[in-house]
Parts: sequence; structure tokens; C-alpha cells
Amino acid sequence: MAGRNFLFVPGPTNVPDRVLRAMVVPMEDHRSPIFPELTRTLLTGLKPVFKTTTGTPILFPSSGTGCWEAALTNCLNPGDKVLASRFGQFSHLWVDMCQRLGFEVEILETPWGEGAPVERYLASLAADKQHRIKAVLVCQNETATGVTSDVAAVRKAMDSVKHPALLFVDTVSALVSIDFRMDEWGVDVCVSGSQKGLMLPTGMAFTGISAKAIAATAEAKTPRVYWDWRRLMGEASQAYWNGTAPVHFFYGLQEALRMLEEEGLDNVFARHHRLAEATRRAVRVWRQNDGPEIFAVDPGAQSDSITAVLVPEGYDADKIRQAALDKFNVSLGGGLDRLKGRVFRIGHLGDLNEPMVLGAIAAVEMALDLTGVPHGRGAVQAAMEYLAGEV
Amino acid sequence: MAGRNFLFVPGPTNVPDRVLRAMVVPMEDHRSPIFPELTRTLLTGLKPVFKTTTGTPILFPSSGTGCWEAALTNCLNPGDKVLASRFGQFSHLWVDMCQRLGFEVEILETPWGEGAPVERYLASLAADKQHRIKAVLVCQNETATGVTSDVAAVRKAMDSVKHPALLFVDTVSALVSIDFRMDEWGVDVCVSGSQKGLMLPTGMAFTGISAKAIAATAEAKTPRVYWDWRRLMGEASQAYWNGTAPVHFFYGLQEALRMLEEEGLDNVFARHHRLAEATRRAVRVWRQNDGPEIFAVDPGAQSDSITAVLVPEGYDADKIRQAALDKFNVSLGGGLDRLKGRVFRIGHLGDLNEPMVLGAIAAVEMALDLTGVPHGRGAVQAAMEYLAGEV
Amino acid sequence: MAGRNFLFVPGPTNVPDRVLRAMVVPMEDHRSPIFPELTRTLLTGLKPVFKTTTGTPILFPSSGTGCWEAALTNCLNPGDKVLASRFGQFSHLWVDMCQRLGFEVEILETPWGEGAPVERYLASLAADKQHRIKAVLVCQNETATGVTSDVAAVRKAMDSVKHPALLFVDTVSALVSIDFRMDEWGVDVCVSGSQKGLMLPTGMAFTGISAKAIAATAEAKTPRVYWDWRRLMGEASQAYWNGTAPVHFFYGLQEALRMLEEEGLDNVFARHHRLAEATRRAVRVWRQNDGPEIFAVDPGAQSDSITAVLVPEGYDADKIRQAALDKFNVSLGGGLDRLKGRVFRIGHLGDLNEPMVLGAIAAVEMALDLTGVPHGRGAVQAAMEYLAGEV
Amino acid sequence: MAGRNFLFVPGPTNVPDRVLRAMVVPMEDHRSPIFPELTRTLLTGLKPVFKTTTGTPILFPSSGTGCWEAALTNCLNPGDKVLASRFGQFSHLWVDMCQRLGFEVEILETPWGEGAPVERYLASLAADKQHRIKAVLVCQNETATGVTSDVAAVRKAMDSVKHPALLFVDTVSALVSIDFRMDEWGVDVCVSGSQKGLMLPTGMAFTGISAKAIAATAEAKTPRVYWDWRRLMGEASQAYWNGTAPVHFFYGLQEALRMLEEEGLDNVFARHHRLAEATRRAVRVWRQNDGPEIFAVDPGAQSDSITAVLVPEGYDADKIRQAALDKFNVSLGGGLDRLKGRVFRIGHLGDLNEPMVLGAIAAVEMALDLTGVPHGRGAVQAAMEYLAGEV
Repeated sequence: MAGRNFLFVPGPTNVPDRVLRAMVVPMEDHRSPIFPELTRTLLTGLKPVFKTTTGTPILFPSSGTGCWEAALTNCLNPGDKVLASRFGQFSHLWVDMCQRLGFEVEILETPWGEGAPVERYLASLAADKQHRIKAVLVCQNETATGVTSDVAAVRKAMDSVKHPALLFVDTVSALVSIDFRMDEWGVDVCVSGSQKGLMLPTGMAFTGISAKAIAATAEAKTPRVYWDWRRLMGEASQAYWNGTAPVHFFYGLQEALRMLEEEGLDNVFARHHRLAEATRRAVRVWRQNDGPEIFAVDPGAQSDSITAVLVPEGYDADKIRQAALDKFNVSLGGGLDRLKGRVFRIGHLGDLNEPMVLGAIAAVEMALDLTGVPHGRGAVQAAMEYLAGEV
Repeated sequence: MAGRNFLFVPGPTNVPDRVLRAMVVPMEDHRSPIFPELTRTLLTGLKPVFKTTTGTPILFPSSGTGCWEAALTNCLNPGDKVLASRFGQFSHLWVDMCQRLGFEVEILETPWGEGAPVERYLASLAADKQHRIKAVLVCQNETATGVTSDVAAVRKAMDSVKHPALLFVDTVSALVSIDFRMDEWGVDVCVSGSQKGLMLPTGMAFTGISAKAIAATAEAKTPRVYWDWRRLMGEASQAYWNGTAPVHFFYGLQEALRMLEEEGLDNVFARHHRLAEATRRAVRVWRQNDGPEIFAVDPGAQSDSITAVLVPEGYDADKIRQAALDKFNVSLGGGLDRLKGRVFRIGHLGDLNEPMVLGAIAAVEMALDLTGVPHGRGAVQAAMEYLAGEV
Repeated sequence: MAGRNFLFVPGPTNVPDRVLRAMVVPMEDHRSPIFPELTRTLLTGLKPVFKTTTGTPILFPSSGTGCWEAALTNCLNPGDKVLASRFGQFSHLWVDMCQRLGFEVEILETPWGEGAPVERYLASLAADKQHRIKAVLVCQNETATGVTSDVAAVRKAMDSVKHPALLFVDTVSALVSIDFRMDEWGVDVCVSGSQKGLMLPTGMAFTGISAKAIAATAEAKTPRVYWDWRRLMGEASQAYWNGTAPVHFFYGLQEALRMLEEEGLDNVFARHHRLAEATRRAVRVWRQNDGPEIFAVDPGAQSDSITAVLVPEGYDADKIRQAALDKFNVSLGGGLDRLKGRVFRIGHLGDLNEPMVLGAIAAVEMALDLTGVPHGRGAVQAAMEYLAGEV
Repeated sequence: MAGRNFLFVPGPTNVPDRVLRAMVVPMEDHRSPIFPELTRTLLTGLKPVFKTTTGTPILFPSSGTGCWEAALTNCLNPGDKVLASRFGQFSHLWVDMCQRLGFEVEILETPWGEGAPVERYLASLAADKQHRIKAVLVCQNETATGVTSDVAAVRKAMDSVKHPALLFVDTVSALVSIDFRMDEWGVDVCVSGSQKGLMLPTGMAFTGISAKAIAATAEAKTPRVYWDWRRLMGEASQAYWNGTAPVHFFYGLQEALRMLEEEGLDNVFARHHRLAEATRRAVRVWRQNDGPEIFAVDPGAQSDSITAVLVPEGYDADKIRQAALDKFNVSLGGGLDRLKGRVFRIGHLGDLNEPMVLGAIAAVEMALDLTGVPHGRGAVQAAMEYLAGEV
């Protein structure tokens, strides 16, 4: 198809030309004297990304899923109890993994479209007088529903009852798009991937671990090798990398970190908020005209990286996506599991700007048109007027 | 700046990823046995692009300007008379080159914003009983004003008075965007560049020459070497290439030709028309609200590859461009020469699709907003509704 | 440093320009309709690489180490007994992983420099009347010592005593360089990585599993998610990929498989043998002059993908490597663990040809010269004369 | 074919990965505010490459041939007399161009294999009492024969008779490989291309012009537009670039200049001398064994960028080249014109190092072997021993 594909799935995101170019490298001896220095630079460079000075960043050649498994197996023992909420496909998958790995999961079942139920976290933690809960899991941004949860509030709940559990945060689709503060929020393990806000191809995953989490590894008895953090910390980190290091990713990450430093992390968040808000204003106009609406129910929890859009009863979200792809070369995310056919998802995260987002919204509206979904007029106008007032 | 630059200057245009990738090649021996075969494939592949079966395509490592010089010096003799019209910066530069090279130019001065004055061409040709005019020059698409001229009509005028002059056409910003028919229109020399519809980086130029033009080379006495077509035709073409051949461009052209074949040239023209018409509909809405208007006066001559937009009295087109670039990462063309500050130009040619163009139009409207230029509402809506009805 | 780095470590290997170029792709929707088809092509294309028609190839975003872990945890239960031999750093690491994961390992300790002790495998298997051994592990090519083991003979030993254990083969530095026959040799799980014979950057790992191994997964109780083969087989394989699929690697693999098909796998093996033998002939000349010698003791087991070179007593292999790198931009592998400083390793695997290898050997000899290591004359000459007779 | 092509033609040369990567850029608005700054950096960066502080560098989208034409047409008038020597295909082509462009050429015919005949230049200049000679042409490095001429001596000859002619130097295959000193040698125009020592793809040409040459443009009456230096000097240089500027080349040049600055120009020359001398030592061993010999007769004039090798009577140089290409993926230059089949040329210029050159020499010897050409033993050994003593 002519022109660039508009990649508006919620990851992978657009790899900037600078990053793509930085990865066009010949392979090199990953045991050479220069490689440890490169590694140190990257690990140091990830600290401000996690907003941590005391935490330890670790890189894995894997997807983010692997980092989840690492978090659980490095800190916990089989049979340990964890507290988690489930309100979408990705929070579900994490719970499911916990169960498969043999942990006891207290699940706070929450309607899809809502975020982490802080009050219920508090209630469970308060009730856990014996401190059987070893880890509290929160999905900061549910990629399936476009809902952002309040991690700081969960930490506050833990602190208010002086609960000693570890706090694990899935920040895969939030990191570098939505503010995340490892130290301030007392996060013990955060988990992310390369293909979202970090603007890299898929294939690497990033985790940040606190001193408390590191201490927990000493007691963890789940058999593990690849995911064993201890192999990737300290001096050994420059020698093994779980086998050979994916050097092209290292150079890509180096360039991505440079770009983030140039733009400034707070500006990156502001840009994501602006583009997300523009998207939401457009959807609200459709909604006012009996068209699609934002799936996330609480306006304050609507995600700045993903907007899940619920189509009116009687229409098929996948047909809209197909039209957008076939006619306008715009890729949208589909509804997952119970949302299949009912929502489409606009991923407005990563290396994006205003005309990209407006072009995508326009294409979505044209796809609504082509599939007979009501939408009215003025959605893009509303988005434009908002944006012109914000830049 | 975040996100992709929206490159809406009237060339260079976006190099598709496929073409960019095809050019990431190591250098190779351009005198190897495989190189002539590659060259032949490319020259053959250019014929349908020029819509010729009898003409001869030639490639130069140069910009399109060089092909102009080649056309003039290979076919004419110093002092020869040529007939040309001037209605924009590029038709002006061609006239200027003719004069610098020592030809006598009968200039049909035409207001900028209009196209080639066919009636006046006819009058001049009819008056030229002695056939002193050796070449008739037409700029098919004036890049400075966004006006497309009627080359077929000029040929018809020549034929109606049986004038034997050669017909030279500057098709730089038209080729592969707007229909061009070398054989049907009896064009003797057409001139184009790599960085427009052919979707390549700048640096190569393409010309097509008729048998009559080749015959004229035998009589041409202007000293020339680099531009001498004879060195690049026949077997020699595979041996010298005016020095060493730019092999990475050859591979890029190979891929670009493949893409054009896949989409189909007529579909490419239809797409350009659709995107241009969407742009024009948006501008017309601005105009209805006392905002900018299309510079090209004759609706039938408004170009499908470039829209020059005249800003209302009292506003500065360059400030609009600056706002579009600084705030939205959208690059627009500026007004040239007498149009400086009065028009901005939207280049909607090359590897583009609907959301790219709509994103650009939206950015322009936001830039109008930021610079206080009236524009009203509904421009993007008009463009979208047109496009949804056309795809 | 000027010129290309000569990458002669035993992996990562040179990524051919074609593969590098194929990976310069924008990200794309990995859930789009075209992605399953691409995946199927790759999985099918890996079958002849493994020489299997009945086995199932699986891809992981990880290093080869991860595939080891997958093999063990998918087929075995904690406490299960495995039989393995240890004769170098990589066979050691695999044994070590088995122990860390809670398996009981019967270790056939073998001097470094020798290969898998087939007779002792046979003895252990014969003694295991109760079939407590659930898996037999063989490292086909020990990357640390440059020794190739006889996998077919191990299978024969198993069959001769009708032992039902699974046969696991580490073919990381052998696959696509040295003949490997999954079906003929009755291999149940083979493990490999992207950065060796498959000529890709580091970051993906490949495993092939037999029907018998798949059947074993049903009984395996080790908690696992990421490495769980079941998630990556069948239809699900196109949906999840352990999270998001690394699409650029998929395109790289597609091109690498094309290249292998063009050259022909047997020609690839013959080329590796030729280049390895040339290397060995050069080292033998050095040895005849009191210089370095081939570390692998049994000539029939000297690897066609890696030559470990033992330096004479009193010399430091790492100084030779440093001189080769600093003065000639040639990267050699170092001695691992107990071989540190005693051997350097020449990785002659992947996308290499005769002048590359001869240039590397020449650089090594010059590095011997600069570090005062005896070597005599004629090493490169011997390699050249052999190669001229073989091509 | 497997492995990297060894590109040992005398241009194009290997584009370093860094340069190739720098050229993988999206197109951009060449009239944007940042482009003039980039241009200024490049033009300034070329001055030390030409060893000039007073000269003006100019860039053309063209091959080096175009710069020749520019030199002649910008400084001279039709009928003007020039003094040139002819001793190879490229000095011949320049003379031929002079004649085609209408200049009177006093040709110092010199046997191929020798360099510029300084004494005869002096004689002609001394005899030219009326100063009818307007320009003296010297080919610094004859690419066809591998002979370097003494430009400083020609200048000295001019000065000794106080001859006011301009001095034009073709430094295409010398620049950045062999010392060139524009200011010290009083060169008025030097001409070069992108695809030799500057390590870029083919497609751009570089020229340096003195104040005296610039002054001459005022009097030059040859019609010219594209090659007209005046359009590319001063402020206009950032606006037009003979049409659209080839921006990807600009970024490539930027990176190439950085690499040259990092290595240091004198180190680059020393490296070229070292690699050339190694090549010559190898050829001399062949010669001592009745094999091929260096074509350049005067040892002091043997080129540090190209060695033309004359094969013994009765053998076909092209068969040797074909064997090197077919069997070992090594590309050698062929004999041009009268040397066709009699010589092959080894281009040892650009981004090369010791193992690359030794690999190429080894491949040539194996090709001699395969084609039955005598060569003896020890050629590579001689080259290695020389190099080990020089680094």
C-alpha cells in the first residue's frame, strides 16, 4: 500500500529513524573491552527512566512477559501468596502466570474498564495480619482497556497498614509514556519492554529492582537460571548476558535514551497526555452523535498511552479496523478476549506527533463512515482546536 | 522533534522504506558482468513510466537541472531559437538557462498562476513560417505555482501548423504523479529527477529522448561531454556512465519501479488526484471563511502534485510555515521569488496516503490558528468526507 | 580503526548485508493477517535446517541459553536424572543449569579437548536398568575447545541398550556449520541460537522438538510459562509469541533461510570444512615451528566451526588476541575458564569466504610475530595451497 | 556467494558501516534553516582534505568527470591552449574532453606506465614565451596504470619560468589516499569524486578552486549552467545546489570527514603506503618466480592507491580476475584500453586494513594458481613480514 503504515496498535510502536539507523551495525565481539562500558552507560541511563537512584536496572533478551516471570521467581517461593487485581487481558495474564508458577493468588476481580481498586487492596492488606501476602501486583496501564491505575495510592495503602509485601508493577505500556516513579512510589520490581515507550523493536525487556527485591532473591527457591537476576548483576553482568548479548539492541537503546534525554522525560509525558486528550476529545464528539465511546469509565483513569474505543451495539469493531487498514493503511489494535469485536484500540504511545495522531483519528472516522457507524461531524476539529491551544 | 517529519515540500519526497532499504548496499564493481543486465532492466523499466515504446531513457548522476542542460545542448546549436512560456520560478529558470547557453528565446510571458498559453504557442508557431524555432519548451507542472499545463494541446498546436520543432517537456514535478504520455503527445525530450514521483533520494536525473531528438544530436555543435547523450546510449552505456555509476541509486530505482508496477501507474495517478482534490477542498473551506486560497486560478489546471496556497493580504506565509514546522514537525514549501511570503506550497506527491495528507492539512490549519490567519471550521471534515467517498 | 573488523570470535558471526538490510524494517502489527503466514514460512523453513520432517521448530526471543532451560523444564521433572558429559565451558554450563534447576546429573567428566565419551555413555546407559535416566545430553560442538562430538554414535549407544531416555543436543555452534540430522539421529530436542551459523544478530533462539519430547511435556511439572513450548505450538503460536513478536528478526531469518537455500546446506557444510581445514593446516605449520597448536586432541573431532589454538608454554594467548585486535582489527575468541590465557579461538563459522579466513590467519601470524611467539614460515602458504586445490 | 565481496577495484571503494548508516536518512527539506549550516560544515571540513586554507571547495551531484568539465569551462575560453600529458586511460580521457570542448591541447605523449614528464612540461612552458598556455593539466594518480606523478615538481617547473597558467590537477584516485597539498603546490583547480578515498558511494564530486581560478571565471565565455561555479559559491550555495541537494550524501560526507579527522590524514596516507608497499612486495615475489610484475616502471612513482599488475606474456589477466571473482569473491580492476587482458589492477584505497589486503593478495595468488600463471611461494609471507614490522 502507498505511504507509510500508521502504526496505532498499542505496541510495537514506531521505531524512530535515528534508532533504526543506530541498529544497523555489524555484529561485534561482545566480550571486547568496550562492551562493558557500553553496558554500564545503558544501565545508568535507564535509572532516570525508572525515576530511581537506588534501584538496579536489568536487561533481558526476551519480551516483557519474561520479566514478569523473573520478578515472580526471583523474589517468591512456590506457594507464596500474592495480591493482584484483574481488570483486563494483561492483568489477567499476569495472574494466570502466577497461578501456573504455583503461587496462591488473591484476585481482586474488577470490571474491565476500571482500574486497580485501591480500597479493596487496602482491605485485603489490612486483613492480612500475618503478612502472608508476599507481593502486591499492580498493572499500571492495562493495555487491553486503556485504563491507568494509581500505583502511588496502592503504595500508600500498603504503608498505611505497614504491610511489608513487595510491590510489583507492570509498567509495560506505561513506561516513558505515563509518569512512573520507582523510588517515590516504593516500587520493588517494575517490568517493561522495548517496543512501547522506549521506541525500540520488540525483543528486549527491561526491569528495575529495589534493594529489598534483591535481598529477597537470597531466599527464593524456585529453580531458575535464565531469569536469575543474580547472573546479570554486578561484574558478571558484562560477561555473560544470558549467553551472547544482542548488541544491535544495545546500540538502539543508547540512541533511544539520547532522544529521551533531549526531549526531556516530562515533556514526553506532556506530549503523550496532549495526544491522548486530543484522541479522547474526538471520541467524545463521536459519542455525542451516537457513535463509539471511550471504554475506560473513569475519566481520571483514561490512559495517556492507549484509548480503547467501544463501538455501539450492533456494530463490529473488527470491521472498522479492517476498513482502516485496507483503505487507509492505519493499523489499530483489536479487542482482546471478551472485548473482541466490541472495541478497537488506538495506541498513541511512542514516537508520535500531532499530525500523525490527527491523521489516524481522521482515518478512523472515515472507517466509521465506510462501515456505517454513526459519528457525526467535528471530531477532528475538536482534536485540532484542543491541540492548537496546547502546543 | 518527536515523531516523523511530515515532508510536504514539493520534493524531495518521502523515500519508502522499501526503497531506502534497497539502497543500503555495499559498493560493487560497476564493470562486473551483472551490472549491464541491471542497467538494461532499469532502462527498460523506465519506458512505461514515460509511456514510450520508441523513446530512449537515459540516467544521469545529477539533478534534473542537468537534464535540462543536456536537452538543450544535445539538440540545438548556439543562436538557435526556442519558444517557451514563463509563468513561475521553474519555467523562468529554464528560460534563463536557455539564455545563458546562448539560445534565442521567444518568451511567452504569462501571469504566475496560469499555465502554458496554448493559443499564444499556436500563434507564434503559425507566425514562424521559416521554422526558425527549433524547440518548443513546456513546463508540464510548474512547481512554484501548482499549475499543470496541457502538453497534448501544445503538441496539437504544433501539428496543426505542421511545425517541425522539437518538443521539450519539463516533467520534473509531474512524472509518476500526473499522467504523462511521451509517445502519444509526441514529446521529443522529457526531463525529470529522482526526488519527486520516483520516490528516490535526490541525486539522479532521468530523461527520455525520441528518435528525432537523437537524430538532432548529430548536428548539435555545442561543446559538451558530461551531458552528451551519445556517451550514454548503446553498448557504451554499460561501460562508462559518465565515470563511475552510482550503484546504490540503481538498486533504489529498481525497487521504486517494482513498487510502481505493483500499484499500477494509473492507480498512482488516481491516488495523487484524490489526495490533491482533498487538499483543495480543505483550502476552499478556508477560503470561504476569508482564509487562504488556491493560487492556481484555473480549476482545471490545479496541479495534482502541488498546491500553492495564497495567504490573505496582511499575513505572512512564511510565519505559517514556521509554525507548522516548529510546532507540528510539518515541512511546507515556501513561496519562491515574487511569491515569497505570499504563498506556501503543499507538495502532495510521491509515497503518500490519506492519513498523511489529512494530518498535514490539520497541521496547516492549526498553524493558521497559531498565526491568527482566518480559516473557519470544517476544512479537514470536507477533505475526509470527500476521501471516504472516493476510496 | 580503519577497514572492517574481522569478526572471528565463535559467535556472534558476520550478519550478511542482505540479512542486515532485511531487518531494516518499520515495526508492524504482529497480530495482522499477514503475520501468521510469515511465521508459518519460517517454521517450515527451519525444518530442513534441522534435517527433520517430523520435528517441530520453535522460536524464542532469547539467547540459546533460554532454549536449554526450555528443553529441561518442558520434558523433565525436578529430581529426574540426566546423563551428560562435561569437556568444556559450554557443556559445563549446561550441566550447571541442570543442577540449578534441580535435576540429578550423572556427569561424565572428560578432559577438555576431547569430545563426548561414547563408550562411557554406553556404559552408563547399560547400567541404568531401571531407566532412571530420563534424558541424555550431548553438546555437539563445544565452543570452548573446538571439539565436535559424534551425536549419531550416542544415539547408537542408546539404541543398542534400548534406552528410552530423551536425547537432547546442544547444537548452538554447530547448526548450519556442521552436519546435524535431527530425524536420522533420533534427536528429541536440539537447541540453537541466531548468532552463529544462522547469520543473524544475537537475540533469538531456535529449538527443534520431536513428537516424543512434545509428549513428555504433558508430564512435566516444573513451573514454567515463558519457556512453555505448549504456548508456542499450534494456532496459538501465531497469536502470542510470548508477548509481542520481534518482527525484525523474523524478516532477518526469512532472508537468512533464503541464502541457505540458494547456497545449499551441503555446500555450506563443505565450505565450513574447507575453511576450517585451511585454518588447521596453518596452525600445524606454526606447530611444526614450535608455535601454537590445535587444542582439540583427536584430529577426527576437530571442529569445522571453531579452532581453539593452544599457545606454547610461557606465552599469553590474550596478548596475541590484543595485538590482533589493536594492530589489525581482527577479533578472536579468548580462552574460557581454565583455558584463559592459554588458548585463543578462531571462529570460522557463518558468512565467511576464503580471503576473509586467509586475512584472519595472516593477522594472527603477524600478532604472533609482534608478541614474540614462534611460528616459522609458510602457514598461510599451506592454507592457500590447500584452498586453491579445493575450490 | 558466501562472505563479503572483497572490493579491490580502484573505486568505488568500501563504504564504511558508519558512513552507510549515516546515509540511511529520510529525505528532508533542503531549504530548511538547518541545511545551510550543514553545508557550511562540510565545505569547511573539505579544506583540510585539500590542504588548503585559501581555496574554495565545491560539491556537485555528478561523477568526477563533471568536475573536469567544470574546471575547463569555468576558467578557459574556447580555443585556449592547455598543456597536458597522456600516459593512461584517465589522462587520455581528460585530454579527449579538452579536445571535445574546443580547446587546443599540447599533449605530452608519455608511455603508459610512466608518470607526468616534468622535464618536458618545463620545456613546453619555457618555450611558451607568449603564455598562450592557459592551463597546465596533471593527473596526480593515473588510475589505469597505478602511477603517481609529482605535482609539486610541475608547479616548480611553472614557477621556474614564471609561467602564469593555471594548474589543474586530477586527484580523483589520489585524494585522501596519497598526499595532496593544494596551497603548497599552488594548485588552482583539483578534481575528485566521492567513491575513492572519501569512502562514499558514487554520485558526488568534489572540486577545490583557488582565488586565481575564481577570478578566471569572470572571463570565461563557454556557455555553462550546471557546472557554473558561480552558482555554487557564496550565499547562493545554500539555496540552489543545482536543483535539489542530495541530502543523504551530505550526511554521508559528514560522517566520512569525521572518520578522517579521527584517524588523522597523515595516518591515512601512512596506512595507504603500508598497504600498497605490502602489495608491491607480494608482486615482486611473483615476479622473481617468472610471474606477474608491477606495471609502473619507476619504483618511486608506484602508486599508493592502485597497483596495476602486468601478467607474463601468454596469459590472460581477465581470466585471473574471473577466477578471483568466481572462486573467492574478490573483485579486481581490469586493464583498460590497450592494457585489456594484459594487466589487472588492485585498488588498495579507501577503508581498508591489513587482513583485507592480505586476504585479497592471497586470493590473487590462488587465482594465479588456478589459471596456471607462475607465481612461486612466499608472496603473502613477504607482505606479512613487512606489515608486521611496520604497524
